[in-house]
Amino acid sequence: MSEPLPSWRDTATRRAILEFIAAVTDEHGADFVPPAARVAVFDNDGTLWTEKPMVVQLHYLLEQWKSAATADPSLAERQPYRAAVSGDLAWLGEAVDRHYAGDDADMGLLIQAVAAASSGASVEDYAESVAAFFRDAKHLSLGGSYAEAVYQPMVELVRLLDANDFRTYIVSGGERDFMRVVTEQYYGIPSQRVIGTALGLTYDEATNSVHYAAALDFFDDGPVKPVRIWTRIGRRPILAAGNSNGDVPMLRFAQGSPRSLALLVHHDDPERGDLPYDKGAEQALEAAAANGFTVISVRDDWERIFPVPS
Amino acid sequence: MSEPLPSWRDTATRRAILEFIAAVTDEHGADFVPPAARVAVFDNDGTLWTEKPMVVQLHYLLEQWKSAATADPSLAERQPYRAAVSGDLAWLGEAVDRHYAGDDADMGLLIQAVAAASSGASVEDYAESVAAFFRDAKHLSLGGSYAEAVYQPMVELVRLLDANDFRTYIVSGGERDFMRVVTEQYYGIPSQRVIGTALGLTYDEATNSVHYAAALDFFDDGPVKPVRIWTRIGRRPILAAGNSNGDVPMLRFAQGSPRSLALLVHHDDPERGDLPYDKGAEQALEAAAANGFTVISVRDDWERIFPVPS
Repeated sequence: MSEPLPSWRDTATRRAILEFIAAVTDEHGADFVPPAARVAVFDNDGTLWTEKPMVVQLHYLLEQWKSAATADPSLAERQPYRAAVSGDLAWLGEAVDRHYAGDDADMGLLIQAVAAASSGASVEDYAESVAAFFRDAKHLSLGGSYAEAVYQPMVELVRLLDANDFRTYIVSGGERDFMRVVTEQYYGIPSQRVIGTALGLTYDEATNSVHYAAALDFFDDGPVKPVRIWTRIGRRPILAAGNSNGDVPMLRFAQGSPRSLALLVHHDDPERGDLPYDKGAEQALEAAAANGFTVISVRDDWERIFPVPS
Repeated sequence: MSEPLPSWRDTATRRAILEFIAAVTDEHGADFVPPAARVAVFDNDGTLWTEKPMVVQLHYLLEQWKSAATADPSLAERQPYRAAVSGDLAWLGEAVDRHYAGDDADMGLLIQAVAAASSGASVEDYAESVAAFFRDAKHLSLGGSYAEAVYQPMVELVRLLDANDFRTYIVSGGERDFMRVVTEQYYGIPSQRVIGTALGLTYDEATNSVHYAAALDFFDDGPVKPVRIWTRIGRRPILAAGNSNGDVPMLRFAQGSPRSLALLVHHDDPERGDLPYDKGAEQALEAAAANGFTVISVRDDWERIFPVPS
């Protein structure tokens, strides 16, 4: 059999991962976990694929908002449509910054526009719209398709866990049905194992189909992640991987298992990939030190970041 | 290999089920469905196990309410605690009847008491309380354990679908985490494939655990069922089975698939099992005729109703 995790360097991090998998799958060992309880959860943006220069879903939304403003020019006078049409994206970053500073007025506009982009659509129509985006879209800095913007070492980890009878899940702040369109192809994770932020849904008897409502149901981040994990899986994970502040409760929740592995991807490579950034990960890095998360250094632990072009 | 569905009689219903499975698993046939899309959903109460003389969860709740009223006697002056303590259960039936007649005052008390029974408990503590109930409880009319009150023909159907690479789910108005405690043992359906009514949940950072809030999150019945199916699975089922009015949208939703089977269990046996009842199934029986649901007659289609005692 070929060497596991080939895109990882032979570091303490890789060894810790392999030792963990060996321990929980060793029937005669003290840390054995039966297959049914081998649950592993992965954040998506910044953990399984790139979130720079912007999260992929925002790229999709900007295109939707631009189209909406073309169809209804009055929209272009309002945010975030104005930002989408003009390409002046500074407002978006500022809206998020103001949110973290406690001012949610702009964040409210943003969330409204997120929900409006799919409001009324059937789940099948939305999936088709997202699929069309992924067929055509080019990553904004890498230039290739989004299939080429996944983190190859993490995909290898997901596959290795699958091969060891884990059930791997995505638990992301990204919108669930957006991710579902590509997670099977990109990571081998099927739709029933994608957990994420949810748009409200209603069943329409006349058309016998499920449609998006005009509001978010919940935002799957921070303390909501353990709640959604319980809701969907009904088990505490034994492995969790994330990269930002919003992943800390999920990583801690996994650590409540008798034997666990909590992984934090640290974007610290000054030359490759997404370049170093700690914004949004400040508390996660502190929590890593305090709670013994295993920090994955992109610079030191990954031999290759993106897949070999096919 | 032994004959499939041994507790079923050789009727048109059994043949329709076997023909459906053969058609969707025949790689060379026009109705082939790849394994990833073979999703089957089952209601629980009255479909997979008995709901007479009362739904199993109500038996559990009555015991919880009795204990609560022992600990705090002032509760015994209020419904539904008074009914639980006195054993006068007519009030419960009337509360439900008034709910269907548009008066939700008593239903509100009932739902409050349902949430109060687990409010504040961690998900692990609640699971332990439910497990203790199932260890000791005797079915109120059959006298055996609840493991002996499952419908053997339906368990055989779940197993047959599993063997044909379906993913089987429960989609029930019953509370999700209550069911999860026994669904693996009783039906071979693991916790991540149990969909049901949800109590609100919160993550408590101090104890690193998930706890029940004091309110219901949603009641998984009627038009909510297709919504929860999409939320949890992200696919339209190709097979659905139910027994009451609240299952109609789920059965119709499955019928939106190119090839589907919608099954309605009809409790029509005057001598065995739960005896005939149509209350709560009136519209479902009408919908069956209008939409071509396959009606399972307990009297005619089932050779045996409950498992052979072990």
